[in-house]
Amino acid sequence: MTSNINTSCTHRILKEYDQEDLTIATVCSHTSLQIFHGAKKEGLKTLGICIGKPPRFYDAFPLAKPDCFMSVNSYKEILERTDELAKKNVIIIPHGSFVEYLGASKFANIRLPTFGNRKVLEWESDRRMERKWLEEAGVPMPRKIQRPEDIKGPVMVKYHGAKGGKGFFVAKNISDFNARIDSKEIYDLQEFVLGTRYYLHYFYSPLSTDGYRLSQGKLELTGMDRRVESNADEIFRLGSPTELEKAGIQPTFVVTGNVPLVLRESLLPKVFEMGEKVVEKSIELFGGLIGSFCLETVLTDELEFRVFEISARIVAGTNPYINGSPYSELIQPELSTGRRIAIEIKKARDMGCLEKVLT
Amino acid sequence: MTSNINTSCTHRILKEYDQEDLTIATVCSHTSLQIFHGAKKEGLKTLGICIGKPPRFYDAFPLAKPDCFMSVNSYKEILERTDELAKKNVIIIPHGSFVEYLGASKFANIRLPTFGNRKVLEWESDRRMERKWLEEAGVPMPRKIQRPEDIKGPVMVKYHGAKGGKGFFVAKNISDFNARIDSKEIYDLQEFVLGTRYYLHYFYSPLSTDGYRLSQGKLELTGMDRRVESNADEIFRLGSPTELEKAGIQPTFVVTGNVPLVLRESLLPKVFEMGEKVVEKSIELFGGLIGSFCLETVLTDELEFRVFEISARIVAGTNPYINGSPYSELIQPELSTGRRIAIEIKKARDMGCLEKVLT
Amino acid sequence: MTSNINTSCTHRILKEYDQEDLTIATVCSHTSLQIFHGAKKEGLKTLGICIGKPPRFYDAFPLAKPDCFMSVNSYKEILERTDELAKKNVIIIPHGSFVEYLGASKFANIRLPTFGNRKVLEWESDRRMERKWLEEAGVPMPRKIQRPEDIKGPVMVKYHGAKGGKGFFVAKNISDFNARIDSKEIYDLQEFVLGTRYYLHYFYSPLSTDGYRLSQGKLELTGMDRRVESNADEIFRLGSPTELEKAGIQPTFVVTGNVPLVLRESLLPKVFEMGEKVVEKSIELFGGLIGSFCLETVLTDELEFRVFEISARIVAGTNPYINGSPYSELIQPELSTGRRIAIEIKKARDMGCLEKVLT
Repeated sequence: MTSNINTSCTHRILKEYDQEDLTIATVCSHTSLQIFHGAKKEGLKTLGICIGKPPRFYDAFPLAKPDCFMSVNSYKEILERTDELAKKNVIIIPHGSFVEYLGASKFANIRLPTFGNRKVLEWESDRRMERKWLEEAGVPMPRKIQRPEDIKGPVMVKYHGAKGGKGFFVAKNISDFNARIDSKEIYDLQEFVLGTRYYLHYFYSPLSTDGYRLSQGKLELTGMDRRVESNADEIFRLGSPTELEKAGIQPTFVVTGNVPLVLRESLLPKVFEMGEKVVEKSIELFGGLIGSFCLETVLTDELEFRVFEISARIVAGTNPYINGSPYSELIQPELSTGRRIAIEIKKARDMGCLEKVLT
Repeated sequence: MTSNINTSCTHRILKEYDQEDLTIATVCSHTSLQIFHGAKKEGLKTLGICIGKPPRFYDAFPLAKPDCFMSVNSYKEILERTDELAKKNVIIIPHGSFVEYLGASKFANIRLPTFGNRKVLEWESDRRMERKWLEEAGVPMPRKIQRPEDIKGPVMVKYHGAKGGKGFFVAKNISDFNARIDSKEIYDLQEFVLGTRYYLHYFYSPLSTDGYRLSQGKLELTGMDRRVESNADEIFRLGSPTELEKAGIQPTFVVTGNVPLVLRESLLPKVFEMGEKVVEKSIELFGGLIGSFCLETVLTDELEFRVFEISARIVAGTNPYINGSPYSELIQPELSTGRRIAIEIKKARDMGCLEKVLT
Repeated sequence: MTSNINTSCTHRILKEYDQEDLTIATVCSHTSLQIFHGAKKEGLKTLGICIGKPPRFYDAFPLAKPDCFMSVNSYKEILERTDELAKKNVIIIPHGSFVEYLGASKFANIRLPTFGNRKVLEWESDRRMERKWLEEAGVPMPRKIQRPEDIKGPVMVKYHGAKGGKGFFVAKNISDFNARIDSKEIYDLQEFVLGTRYYLHYFYSPLSTDGYRLSQGKLELTGMDRRVESNADEIFRLGSPTELEKAGIQPTFVVTGNVPLVLRESLLPKVFEMGEKVVEKSIELFGGLIGSFCLETVLTDELEFRVFEISARIVAGTNPYINGSPYSELIQPELSTGRRIAIEIKKARDMGCLEKVLT
């Protein structure tokens, strides 16, 4: 899919740029308020890409409203208007919705410098490649269950094409599975890990060799959150799950927001170890992650993490920390992930090596 | 109830005021720490109204302790001592407990300038008028169920006069309802909406026409929270609801505190739309809300909001954000709702139109 | 256990100290990031004590990384190297893990000045003495149940030697208790109080007589949190507890992290009253708590607290508030508990009475 990512194209575009006049651009959704707010704090220009008219809600947030907008009729149109954006010395900051709206393969081929390594896309968007990456890195994952016959305890069942928190269910055992599975659908089975969820926000900088040093850069922990999922997080308030099931009411896992939290400090060595392994393996596999990423974990009552997913860019779970998190405060006051990205771009620019953080 | 709100009286009092020497006053409870803290930050004088001796806990919070106290023997006494307060150029900031302690009709008639539009009281305190307001505004609410025969799924049953989170229960279906209803009581039935709760904090300023513009002012989103309800939020830790019910243990919904959270950014357009409709309709119905208000919502797994209540003044859910929220940080650093109120009053004073934000 | 705490020894050591060159030291875990961050902000030197090599994760947090480390092979080794530490004018800040790793009796006898009153250890680590302290103070606790025959409702069963959130279970009634109890073990029975948990962080300063005054000092409320417990806090997402129990899956209560929250303001008088009673009784019983402590409470739907435990030093629940909490912001901007401790030590130093806050 991403085989044709053309970094020499990005290099060529960058050469034409007035690097003293960069513009940070992203699609108006997801973490855009944070990205613009951080870029503005760092004195960079900002541009919001939107379908139709600029969303009015930015008017309510003067410190995050981008300097200008580019209205498009469809996300595809961005691809056709890259020259216009390049003239503004635009650097694209991708986020989850950006990639989803545009489509991973279109995003992979956009002819504009984008923050991060676009090669990560193929490793992240295919469940088997993602598992290969994480398992080979040595990060503990929930066990994959090959066949229903192998179900020994609770399992998470994910139908293929499941999106946004639906098309999942938790079966408590094999008979529960048999009763509920729609066998016409294709599905994956995974051990259901009981524990509490922690979404760990990292930042990998290939530019620095101070701090928590990796083979070629440094690793930061900028925060963590717990996702708020509708209706799973409040279904218990309604009463007995058994009776709910009888009434046809099932838990769903649609992300609606994020709650801030912190982790036992004694687990931080494990957290950094996991982040380190993921980055080092990514360097080996595809030249390396760059910038923000998130490990989505369950922490068991044995204090063991299971990583059930990786997001290889800024996640919405960073939004509670517009003004800094309990972790980023220990790096620099008032440091959001959006601002951290802007700092990284400025640093690369000042070092004359923007191509190290852009593809 | 509020038919005799006499704004000309407020205007007359204001004319006597030394507007350069205003005092922000409220009852010592609910959000008073935040209100005083915000007013002090803005350089305004502060006065705490308390039953009996000033609460000692203010001594522990020097940045929120009011400059002086007025001790009363009963809240009713406030009504008799308005002249004394008027001499101090007092502006009353009402909060939920203030209105509850004093009684809505007494509050409506207090002969002192109060922040916000007191006419909102009759629309907010009567469930039918509240529903009329919100439904006519076009805001989605949980469906009202006229008769038990119409129960098709889970319902929220509220006995009349239910207060503070008790006198409610959730019936999973008609037979559950029949088994548990106390038919000697009068009750309301409402569709129970499954999802995650978001309490959205807005601020409507009739003074400004920049920002997110409405027909006559601007709308802000200053934050959001989730209420912590005892025991509903932790009852699941005890085990099976079915067995708990057998043992006579029912969930209750008494608010004990608040947790901070953020919402998916892609839902912000809906959030602003709802706030806008509520304000515009309020202008039509009774001259308009002023200042802080809160829409209490459930967000379903279809990412649809249902508004189950409105609070037309500062809510306790703003208390996590004494030093700014992830949203207010995008408006102005370190902006609490308490501080926002003080800013609005100062702005109206400086514009020579205090009567636009006070009744 | 702590009978031989030798305060005259601490006084003697302090006399040798260069008090203008104090070093704040603690074991690298639990709340050490916060303690170092706070001390550095106050301009004090810092030293981290660690088993083996210094943990690498500090490299990722430059504003919290201690100025130097002391590597030991075992925590016991600290006891043998106190002279070395004393030469650096070290003041030990104990936290839960410090005391646990070293062992309470060894900690009690460490020949170095430590923040707080070490005599609290024997009152806190023995459940009967803890109950005596709190009950005599007049603080409401969950009822102790003497014998299984007295079980009338839900009970919390704690096996002796239970640690870190395991070895507990909640029995809904006597038959549930009988079915699950391992009668070969020794256990304690306590009424299970249904409600929402609030962990209240206090700070008692014996140095000041302004603020919320007690008989000999002042009381502060610096914040509160709710612990995140694995798997109890998310087990409901898996479905029916009844069926989980059948499958042998039980809730466990291992603390994995902390969520920030705030409490109804109208309950603050009760919160301060409880803190006050605990401090005053501690003065009577053993000369008094000093500095941070935490009351671990459940708040019922009658808005009544039950205190189920006390921690007599900085708790990990303060970690969300590295940059200040909604409560500490009303005392001083950006005030963490770690910083509050550093301020107290500097104040005692400047007043020439370090022995008032150290033992």
